[in-house]
Amino acid sequence: MKKKYTIAVIPGDGIGKEVTPWARRALEKAAGSVADFDYVEFDLGAERYLRDGAILPDEDLEDIKETDAILLGAVGDPRIKAGILERGLLLKLRFALDQYVNLRPSKLYKGVESPLANPGDIDFVVVREGTEGLYCGSGGAVRVDTPEEVATEVSINTAYGAERVVRYAFDLAMKRRKKVTLVHKKNVLVNAGDMWQRIVDRVAGEYPEVEHDYCHIDAATIYLVSDPGRFDVILTDNLFGDILTDEAGAVVGGVGYSASGCINAANEYPSMFEPIHGSAPDIAGQGKANPTAAILSAAMLLRHLGFDEQAAAIDAAVEADIEELGSTVRSTDQVGRDILDRL
Amino acid sequence: MKKKYTIAVIPGDGIGKEVTPWARRALEKAAGSVADFDYVEFDLGAERYLRDGAILPDEDLEDIKETDAILLGAVGDPRIKAGILERGLLLKLRFALDQYVNLRPSKLYKGVESPLANPGDIDFVVVREGTEGLYCGSGGAVRVDTPEEVATEVSINTAYGAERVVRYAFDLAMKRRKKVTLVHKKNVLVNAGDMWQRIVDRVAGEYPEVEHDYCHIDAATIYLVSDPGRFDVILTDNLFGDILTDEAGAVVGGVGYSASGCINAANEYPSMFEPIHGSAPDIAGQGKANPTAAILSAAMLLRHLGFDEQAAAIDAAVEADIEELGSTVRSTDQVGRDILDRL
Ligand SMILES: CC(C)[C@H](C(=O)O)[C@@H](O)C(=O)O
Ligand SMILES: CC(C)[C@H](C(=O)O)[C@@H](O)C(=O)O
Repeated sequence: MKKKYTIAVIPGDGIGKEVTPWARRALEKAAGSVADFDYVEFDLGAERYLRDGAILPDEDLEDIKETDAILLGAVGDPRIKAGILERGLLLKLRFALDQYVNLRPSKLYKGVESPLANPGDIDFVVVREGTEGLYCGSGGAVRVDTPEEVATEVSINTAYGAERVVRYAFDLAMKRRKKVTLVHKKNVLVNAGDMWQRIVDRVAGEYPEVEHDYCHIDAATIYLVSDPGRFDVILTDNLFGDILTDEAGAVVGGVGYSASGCINAANEYPSMFEPIHGSAPDIAGQGKANPTAAILSAAMLLRHLGFDEQAAAIDAAVEADIEELGSTVRSTDQVGRDILDRL
Repeated sequence: MKKKYTIAVIPGDGIGKEVTPWARRALEKAAGSVADFDYVEFDLGAERYLRDGAILPDEDLEDIKETDAILLGAVGDPRIKAGILERGLLLKLRFALDQYVNLRPSKLYKGVESPLANPGDIDFVVVREGTEGLYCGSGGAVRVDTPEEVATEVSINTAYGAERVVRYAFDLAMKRRKKVTLVHKKNVLVNAGDMWQRIVDRVAGEYPEVEHDYCHIDAATIYLVSDPGRFDVILTDNLFGDILTDEAGAVVGGVGYSASGCINAANEYPSMFEPIHGSAPDIAGQGKANPTAAILSAAMLLRHLGFDEQAAAIDAAVEADIEELGSTVRSTDQVGRDILDRL
């Protein structure tokens, strides 16, 4: 009998709703014959919030916790004040499900035009910490809207939280080109930076084959433009990871090709897979969003569940599609169909 | 009689020592005939620290306060733990002298090859807040070097501190293409982000001619690669400004062309001018660092003191030099001489 998996599907907002169906179809087509996937769709995001004020009700969160993995589209809507959906839905999921590894591969596919004149071979993975740092929601404000207002944001970093992603990064490097680059700003953020560096140095002792170095976040943004080929595994905190992966997405020809996984590597909770692009309200509803990143998220989901072969099939279909047709203008559905035809 | 100015010169570390003399010579040659410049050199940086443990002694700081402006090279040395010189010297100067506007122009000069395939016209200025945010040095750590370590970094933001740079940015935009883009991460850092946005919206009301928009830091790193021409004045906090200006430096062909001013716009204390590049220990002592950014800092210093014409002369000499010889490999001294010859 085929093993059964329940997949939570959260299309969310804007183009998230247009690309997520294609992720689901790719998942089904690639692996539907080897396992049974049950899809449970959750109505979460801007529409729901505007309709009944709910962002992520406890019952929904409990139901999501019972699933095996999550496919997410995108979250964010211009009608709603910045932060409400992002913190109440997306970040709440990442934190409540302790998705401490935010895994973001960047690869320049053949057939994609990079904005760089000489991009070289680009193929690295960012291991972004997902549950700490400035994303904790710790901070506040006094005397709001007066000339004496003071607003704080607190970055909380723990050895517990850092060490588990450091280990993940070194394990990952062992399967790749065996190089880890810690990115931080330890010459200014001396408390957190020093802790990260000490943990990296200690864990590195257990991985004598893996080379490791360090780079300030500001210098890293330079290297992504001047020499992105130097990176293999980039290890960094929540905020720096957010920034670097968007820049990386641009450098490999647009965030339309970049997928990500919010992973609870200990498997206590479901992991979540999403394109790194946002809800793109400017092009939403026009059927022109590229579903490639969403489809690649489905491959990451399959790999996470142990379906390496099926994940590789999706990756291969995407690579072939991009190489042949990457430079043509196609609708969301056309790209989706073209990729699925190759599966 | 010519007016007298005292200029503090702090070459600092690494290539800072090689490029700063050229900034001083350019300053002297451009404006020595219209004003009297007295140069006071300060022995601060790694060598001094290793010799006698001093980073920025009170007497030196008091002497620096008495000067009219500061020319700084670069600070940082691999022999010294990250943060000691940066926080004890560079940031201490910025904070003690309340240099709240960190002004960083980015321009793609004719003759410079951008790493971008289609850079377009790039000419924007980043107004980076210089005395707040995560740079305050607020934060700490408990249970250091144990599995229970917790390290925090606190970003402190005040309406007082933000409003003065917001006004500076809008004033600057009035002299330029009349567009201000606030960059923050207000969907996550809701306390500080909301405060910045409110102040921008309010101040913008006084500048009806200036258009303003908003961009998340992650999206801004994309635009710097995909469409840098869209920016005129970028307004942002201390950390985001640090990150964006290094990426911008790369995009305009290398941080070797990017100067900056740490400005006390109220003129209560001397302002400081420095290239945005660091001490570059990898190439220090080899006479190959490009002094262009340092020379452009001298122009910013002159403009700050009111010598617009002399500043423009340096800018013009640099532009002509780059256009004609920018792609040739030259030593520090050769570039310095070539630029001075045109002055
Ligand atoms: C929407 C936002 C909260 C989110 C983040 O900052 O993590 C997004 O930018 C991302 O990178 O997934
Ligand atoms: C050296 C460092 C403290 C400094 C900063 O982060 O401000 C530098 O990167 C800069 O941009 O001037």
